[in-house]
Amino acid sequence: MLNNKIHSQIIKKKSFLCVGLDIDINKIPKSLLTLDDPIFEFAKQIIDSTNEYAIAYKPNIAFFEAHGVQGYKSLEKISKYLNSNFPEIFTIADAKRGDIGNTSQMYASAFLKDLDFDSITVSPYMGSDSVEPFLSYKNKYVFLLALTSNKGSEDFQELIINDSTKLFEKVIRTSRKWKNSDKIMYVVGAKNTREIGKIRTIVPDSYLLIPGIGAQGGNLEEICKYGLDKDLKIIVNSSRSIIYASDRNDFAQMAKNEAKKIQMEMEKYLNNI
Amino acid sequence: MLNNKIHSQIIKKKSFLCVGLDIDINKIPKSLLTLDDPIFEFAKQIIDSTNEYAIAYKPNIAFFEAHGVQGYKSLEKISKYLNSNFPEIFTIADAKRGDIGNTSQMYASAFLKDLDFDSITVSPYMGSDSVEPFLSYKNKYVFLLALTSNKGSEDFQELIINDSTKLFEKVIRTSRKWKNSDKIMYVVGAKNTREIGKIRTIVPDSYLLIPGIGAQGGNLEEICKYGLDKDLKIIVNSSRSIIYASDRNDFAQMAKNEAKKIQMEMEKYLNNI
Repeated sequence: MLNNKIHSQIIKKKSFLCVGLDIDINKIPKSLLTLDDPIFEFAKQIIDSTNEYAIAYKPNIAFFEAHGVQGYKSLEKISKYLNSNFPEIFTIADAKRGDIGNTSQMYASAFLKDLDFDSITVSPYMGSDSVEPFLSYKNKYVFLLALTSNKGSEDFQELIINDSTKLFEKVIRTSRKWKNSDKIMYVVGAKNTREIGKIRTIVPDSYLLIPGIGAQGGNLEEICKYGLDKDLKIIVNSSRSIIYASDRNDFAQMAKNEAKKIQMEMEKYLNNI
Repeated sequence: MLNNKIHSQIIKKKSFLCVGLDIDINKIPKSLLTLDDPIFEFAKQIIDSTNEYAIAYKPNIAFFEAHGVQGYKSLEKISKYLNSNFPEIFTIADAKRGDIGNTSQMYASAFLKDLDFDSITVSPYMGSDSVEPFLSYKNKYVFLLALTSNKGSEDFQELIINDSTKLFEKVIRTSRKWKNSDKIMYVVGAKNTREIGKIRTIVPDSYLLIPGIGAQGGNLEEICKYGLDKDLKIIVNSSRSIIYASDRNDFAQMAKNEAKKIQMEMEKYLNNI
């Protein structure tokens, strides 16, 4: 199902770039550290400088939780800043949550209602009733972990189930039967781009969020070859290679340059469809 | 491997009860709502009234995140209260986290260092490098999700892998090969107690955390039949049936009565070993 918010941004910006906000206080310019809220200030400048090329932002919740109450305050401010200034841009809380029903309800309320993100990443391990509470909010979406880009993804996600499909395929196929499954999108790592093609055929109507380009080594041309379709239901994330393009005071400009570089490559693949 | 903190508490209190702090602001006595921090006050009174019978406390992080910054403050206070007043009692951050390595490191720092919990629940879906960062802290432990007690656990955890083992067994067996795997304990739902017996034989040396008695319907006698061994490497959690034993001002006393009732039943099974 086409998502108007995502689709119109892709068309307008000729980009399907999501910028991951994995903000590590040890990697941001020292000059920011004297400010009241260095993490928010860094995020704000990254957003201001890259929004011309980015169709989505994805704060990585762990990096905020690592700062306790102050981290949570920064996260609230970033969410408010995005929703107030760039309501047309899609937001993803990269939280990898998932628990029994009454607990997932609480996580859903925190991220989709109070923090007002458009979507959240969710782990599938606990099954249907751990995911469905996230699907009950209007115009809110889930990115379900299918195949991730880390080495450990081989441990379980690629195991062969008795009917000869891999676990991550089974996760995708099973999730299609859940209530409000039209609101499920999928996280698909860029490590093995052929698998992206396979997943594209299993869920031709679902958006795929593909992390792993840049620092994690994924190849954009290969990703597009297997994942990009005529409906443009793809979002490709880059975090570290953009936000840490420089560790000096020119970080925002350098992030902009890097985002633009990726956008221009994306535009080329979009023009080829 | 025997955990001294857990073991000595089980011996002393003749109990292997963990009290789950799934504190829902809508379920606590109305009289607390006028206080500055009703959630902390509720937790404090529950802890004060049940610590004679409980060997562990398990705050459910979702219920704190649902209150944003204020919830995080309450969680910090609860952790400090437990560590200051009851350092002998084991604490579990029920967070179900897990992400790529650099992100799991952030979660580990938040929960095991800053909030100083003894352990954290972790989801296995992303494999070795998503779990290992939690295992690098001295005297800190992971409860890895194996078989959970919710209905959705059937969706994936019980799938048959090609060599005829179920996914949750494979998760357990594979995790034994990870670095510092002696610090991994396992979450095993009480829904199917025979599976607890099977898991007990796979990991005879690991602690099992068994949620699902009380509101979720698990049967303690059955759990002990299959899960309790001579080394007493078992922790059984109850949340709602204890902390919501009453919704009036007698809630702490009623929670104490309920905890005592469970402890007395546990003592019976401990005496039978």
